[in-house]
Order: sequence, then C-alpha cells, then structure tokens
Amino acid sequence: MAKVNENFLKLQGSYLFSTVGKKVAEYQKAHPDKNVIRLGIGDVTLPLPGAVVAALHRAVDEMAVQETFRGYAPDLGYEFLRSAVVEHDFKSRGVELSIDEIFISDGAKSDSANIQEVFAPDSKIAVCDPVYPVYVDSNVMAGRSGSYDTATGRWSNVIYMPCTMENNFVPELPGQTPDIIYLCFPNNPTGAALEKEELQVWVDYANEKKAVIIFDAAYEAYISRPGVPHSIYECDGAKTCAVELRSFSKNAGFTGTRLAYTVVPKELMVDGVPLGALWARRHGTKFNGAPYIIQRAGEAVYGEEGKKQVAEMVGYYMRNAKVILDGLKAAGYTVSGGVDSPYVWLKTPQGMGSWEFFDYLLANANVVGTPGAGFGPSGEGYFRLTAFGSYENTVEAVGRICRLG
Amino acid sequence: MAKVNENFLKLQGSYLFSTVGKKVAEYQKAHPDKNVIRLGIGDVTLPLPGAVVAALHRAVDEMAVQETFRGYAPDLGYEFLRSAVVEHDFKSRGVELSIDEIFISDGAKSDSANIQEVFAPDSKIAVCDPVYPVYVDSNVMAGRSGSYDTATGRWSNVIYMPCTMENNFVPELPGQTPDIIYLCFPNNPTGAALEKEELQVWVDYANEKKAVIIFDAAYEAYISRPGVPHSIYECDGAKTCAVELRSFSKNAGFTGTRLAYTVVPKELMVDGVPLGALWARRHGTKFNGAPYIIQRAGEAVYGEEGKKQVAEMVGYYMRNAKVILDGLKAAGYTVSGGVDSPYVWLKTPQGMGSWEFFDYLLANANVVGTPGAGFGPSGEGYFRLTAFGSYENTVEAVGRICRLG
Repeated sequence: MAKVNENFLKLQGSYLFSTVGKKVAEYQKAHPDKNVIRLGIGDVTLPLPGAVVAALHRAVDEMAVQETFRGYAPDLGYEFLRSAVVEHDFKSRGVELSIDEIFISDGAKSDSANIQEVFAPDSKIAVCDPVYPVYVDSNVMAGRSGSYDTATGRWSNVIYMPCTMENNFVPELPGQTPDIIYLCFPNNPTGAALEKEELQVWVDYANEKKAVIIFDAAYEAYISRPGVPHSIYECDGAKTCAVELRSFSKNAGFTGTRLAYTVVPKELMVDGVPLGALWARRHGTKFNGAPYIIQRAGEAVYGEEGKKQVAEMVGYYMRNAKVILDGLKAAGYTVSGGVDSPYVWLKTPQGMGSWEFFDYLLANANVVGTPGAGFGPSGEGYFRLTAFGSYENTVEAVGRICRLG
Repeated sequence: MAKVNENFLKLQGSYLFSTVGKKVAEYQKAHPDKNVIRLGIGDVTLPLPGAVVAALHRAVDEMAVQETFRGYAPDLGYEFLRSAVVEHDFKSRGVELSIDEIFISDGAKSDSANIQEVFAPDSKIAVCDPVYPVYVDSNVMAGRSGSYDTATGRWSNVIYMPCTMENNFVPELPGQTPDIIYLCFPNNPTGAALEKEELQVWVDYANEKKAVIIFDAAYEAYISRPGVPHSIYECDGAKTCAVELRSFSKNAGFTGTRLAYTVVPKELMVDGVPLGALWARRHGTKFNGAPYIIQRAGEAVYGEEGKKQVAEMVGYYMRNAKVILDGLKAAGYTVSGGVDSPYVWLKTPQGMGSWEFFDYLLANANVVGTPGAGFGPSGEGYFRLTAFGSYENTVEAVGRICRLG
C-alpha cells in the first residue's frame, strides 16, 4: 500500500507568495476598479535586454535547421556559458574558478531547494530569521526540520539566527553548531549586505567547524558599496567550505526565462568526498540541462551590449529603491536595505502585525508588499517592498503610503 | 560537521549515457577519421517544427516589450498550455481531465526522478528489468534501494519484473507487493507496447493493492497499432491509482528545449491525502515554472500546423525504425520493438555480452548503440538501437551492421 511522505504534511500553510497572490486576487476581484500596485513578490517588470532578445532569436533560428539543431544539452551546461561565467563573474574579481566548478541550472530556486539532497538526512541546518522560505521548506520536506512549534513559529531541529534592527540585520554566529549554514547576501528579505570582513567571520567559522555554507548571491548585481563582496570566494578559504548560488533572474530579468548556476569548488570536500561530484551526479540523474536557447541568452548577458543593458536595468531598479527608501524615511518610517539590494525592509508602524499591515496597505493604499512574518518569526513587525516595479508605479505607491499619514 | 548523503555513494558507476558518451568520445579521439554514427542515446536529430519555431520567435518578441513581458510563470504552468494538453492529449481520446490535474515541468526526466519525493521514504518500488535508469537511481538517492549486489546487479529492496524474450517483454505481476510501480509503455528500452487489456491488468492490480503506478508515456506518439492505449487513463479505474508522465521531447523534438508534464488525477488519494496536492507543493517550493517562451512553443505543438509537422517527424523516425527492424531481421538478428516505439531491441549475436557487443559495434561498424545491461541485469545479452538518427545515417548504419556478417 502506497504511503505519502509525511514530511510534506508538516509544511505550514501554503507557500508565502501563493498566499500573497491569492489575497491580492481576492481583493482585486472584489474591487475591480482599484489600481493595485504590486511591490510584493520579487518579480522583475522590465523586458529582457536587447542583446538577450537578439541571442534568443538567433538560437531559435539554429534550432530550426538540422545542421545547427541541438538536442540534449551537456548535463552541467554548455561550455560557452560556463566559460563566460568563469571569466566575467569571477576572474574579473580576482577569483579563479574552472568551468567544471560551474553547474548550470534552470533557476536558483531549484538549486537552493535541491542542494540539501547531497547532505546527510540528519544534517542540522542554520538559517537567518527572517529567511527566504525555500531553504527551510526544502529541508522540512527532506525530514530534517523536526516538529513545528506554532507558538514560536519555529522548527525544533533548525538553528535560527535572528536578524533584526538590534543587530543591524547581521546574523551572529550560532550557539549550537550547524552542519549546513544558509546565508543570502545581499539579503532577501532584509536588503542587508555584509562587508568582506563580516563575511570572512563566517568563512572562518565554517572551516573551523567543518560546516558548509550555502551562499545565495542572487542579488549581487545590486551591490553598490565597494567593501561588499560580490562572491563569497573573495574571502580567504571560502573554496573549502562554501557553495555559491547565482541567478540570471534579478540582474538580467530572467524570472520567466529561467537560468542560474551553482559554484561547487573542487576543494570543497565533505567527509572526504568532493561535494561537486555528488552535485554533478544529481544533475546527471535528475535534470536534463537548461534549454539551449536560454543558455545562449545567458551568454549574451556577458557580451559588451548585454553588460551595458543589464547595468542600465539594475540602475533603473535602484532608482526605485531610492524613491522607496527616501519617501518612507521622510514619512517617518524606520527603513533599511535598498542600498546594495532591490529590497527595502521597513518596521511596521504602531506595532502592527506584518500581515495586519499587509491587509491595511492593500485596502487603503492598494499597494502590495510582503509581510515580514512570512519570512520567519523574527520578520514579524517588518514588511518588504521591492524595487522591481515601474518607476511611475513606485513613485505612485510611495506617494499613496505617505499620504496614509 | 557536514556529512554527505551516503545514498549517493551507493550509486553504481556513472550514469549510463555518460559512460556511453565517454567511450564514444575516446574512440572518436583515437580515430578522428572514422564517421561514427550514433544510434545510442534517445536524442532526436530533426530540427524543431516550423510552427514551434514561429511560436518561439513570437514569444521572444513578447519578452522584449514591457507591455507583454512575462516574469515568474504560474507554479504549475500557464493555463493556455494546460488547456491545450487537456483538450488535445486527452479529451480527443475520451479521457476527461481538468487543467488542475496537469503539472507543467522542464522535462520528463526531472518528473520521473522527482515524483518519488511525495511518497514515504520506506516505500517499496517495483520496476521492469531492463529499465530506464532514472527510476531506480532516484530511489537509490532517496535511500529506498537497500544494498547493491554486484553478483546479481540488483538492489536488495527493489522488486524487479524481468522483461525478456520469454515473456515477450511484458512484465508479470510481482510476487511481492510493491507500493509504487514504474511502468513505461511504449517501453524504453525494449520498444514493447501493452495492449489495453494488458495494461488493465496492472490498473486492477494497483487498485486492489492500493499501490500507485507511475506510468511513463513519453513515447506515446510512436504508437501505431489501434489496440494500444496512448494514456493509462483509457483503462477503467486508472484515475484512482496512476500518475502519468508525458514529454514533448520525442514527439516534437524538445530534448534540448525542455518541456513535459505530469498528470495527477484528483481521484488519486494515497493514505487519505490527495497526491496532487503534494505534487503541487513540490512544484511550488522547489521549481519556478518552465520558461514562458517554451510553454508557448509547447502550445504550438497542438495547433493545426504543429500537429501536422509532429506527425511528419514521427513518421520520419518510424521509417528509420522500419529500416533497422527489417535490415537486422534480414541479417538474421532476433529483433523486437520498433512498431509502436522508436526503439529496436535486439538479441546480441553468439551470446556476446552487451557491453562487449557495444565495443565490437563501435570498433567494427563505427555504430553507437546502447548496451542492454546498462538498463538492468535482464538487459544483458540485448542491445538498443534508436530510430532518431537521420534516414541516411540509419540506412548506412544498418548496412554496416549487416556487412559484419
């Protein structure tokens, strides 16, 4: 008799952004005349850069002709893309990697959910709180979380590292020793970034404890301050303790196009086993490569035109971030993030709960944000706004919020 | 201290097609002058159909303009594609499904590897032998396989259902009761197909035992005989016991474009839990949708032009299958498959081992096939050739094999 994976049944409610989506859809249905502005989910709104569009058309044409048609891609990605990554994302920053340390995938969400598979089932994970829900949920589904305490909103077997105003949203080293440490910087959802010295502390800690850091660098393109590392491998010793996740979603607008990669350095040995070999085996068994045409699109991001266009897009969104940051500050809100990150993190006013503030903002300003509590218990009392809307909508949304008084 | 998932270390050697690929690359490097013909991996060679190419270009143009740009896709797929699937793949065959029973993904390999996650960790699986390696390997990685016996080539906790000449490549009901039954028909690798009455036996068995059938119908487009069901839901009662996997790879040439879907009927309850809800949760947590442009490409497969072009492609490959089947028969080989399937399955001559025959064929005819033993112990002494080459190459390869005498 078949039985289900009971770990799936432990998952709390539905996925955060599904809940947000449903609430917005219900509101919009009840108020079809209202112009709802979405600054909630971290989805981009600008079209694909011209260089990417051109590369897609070219690749589609190749697929239309027998001589240039491509079937199954290499499991780990085409060499042309892996080379471009090594050259432009790392070598240019003084980080030496070889192409077989780069694993191309269909998205950083998949990678961040799948990476836990290569670790022992009884591994202990540590996460920032608040946190991108996928890190925790994928471990719940794998049976690593223990039981959920509804009173605290925490899992019994997960180490939480609170990131709040009190510590300037920088996690402290945990008291209990974890096996796997998830770090996302620039951070989703708080928008905080770590300076090199701050990240070095984590690298040293992981090497000392023989823990592995899963470093999610999906937002590195938004870094504006020079002291903030774009890659964890800018820190000494990171190659022996860290996996890095990168994405084309937020820099080049690939949220609906799907492309990402993971870096697993050859030096990263766990228990005497090269972690990259296990990750390669996972790719080879459970994945069949990202589409050829989309890998060509990714390659175009690194071309001269592509780089320029991506920089313009990032600049456009960062202007939005500034509008939100400055507008809310002027209106008396306590805000952070938004400098090295497309996310602005604000303290809800008058001690409102973060879902309460979500409903309040939706009803009174017709603006959608994301409740901090959706990212973990320490997110309660906070709220996330994203810079991914259009400039006009962002200005309008901030104006509406400010007028609430 | 981090530890690895030891189940990964249990995996035997590398993935079959990687090994084949390496052997071919080595041979080609040592003999650069030889014209090696690949009839090994099940990869297509004809370019994408014109209707699909046109749809891709249109969708790329949409992504280039803010008004029609698409970000994150709905977790489970766009309605336009799910509707087309329901209408053209099922309604037209008398099977009623609703769009929320269709789950769009990036490939049937991913789906067939991931589906095991929704079942209990101690589930017992049954597989045909020989078998597509992903079903077994994904369960090994999840810790369900027990230990590997190198003498028998079998996992201690997996139920094997031999498919050999003796039973005409149709599996018999297993003696031991499984929780999950993987069936692939038309079969990879044997090319065998089940008639409706034969498949009905399995549906009745699964319902009686409350087991779940994972029915891989990736090759349904190649069915030529009228008595062979294209979907397991053509059998009575299948909705309460079967998940069906479908792919765009083999019908429309999407091996390098990546698109597939899984059907999980609402009536499929496991342990009182609707399996579709768990699968939806997996999609929502660990996957971010197939690319918009590729879902549009998939939609085009169901248009008038698309259908015609796909039928022509399938016809082209099936002409190859006939060339292989007839040629080898005339040369005295014992062959099967190739009628409702792009795969021809042959008995190796003079009791040769199947890897031995692989090496022999590569060295003497410069033809690449796939050794039956790579698909499981009962595949030993058999060999797979695929119809996915060009017509000219297929004729040439068959000629070379026949001339070996």
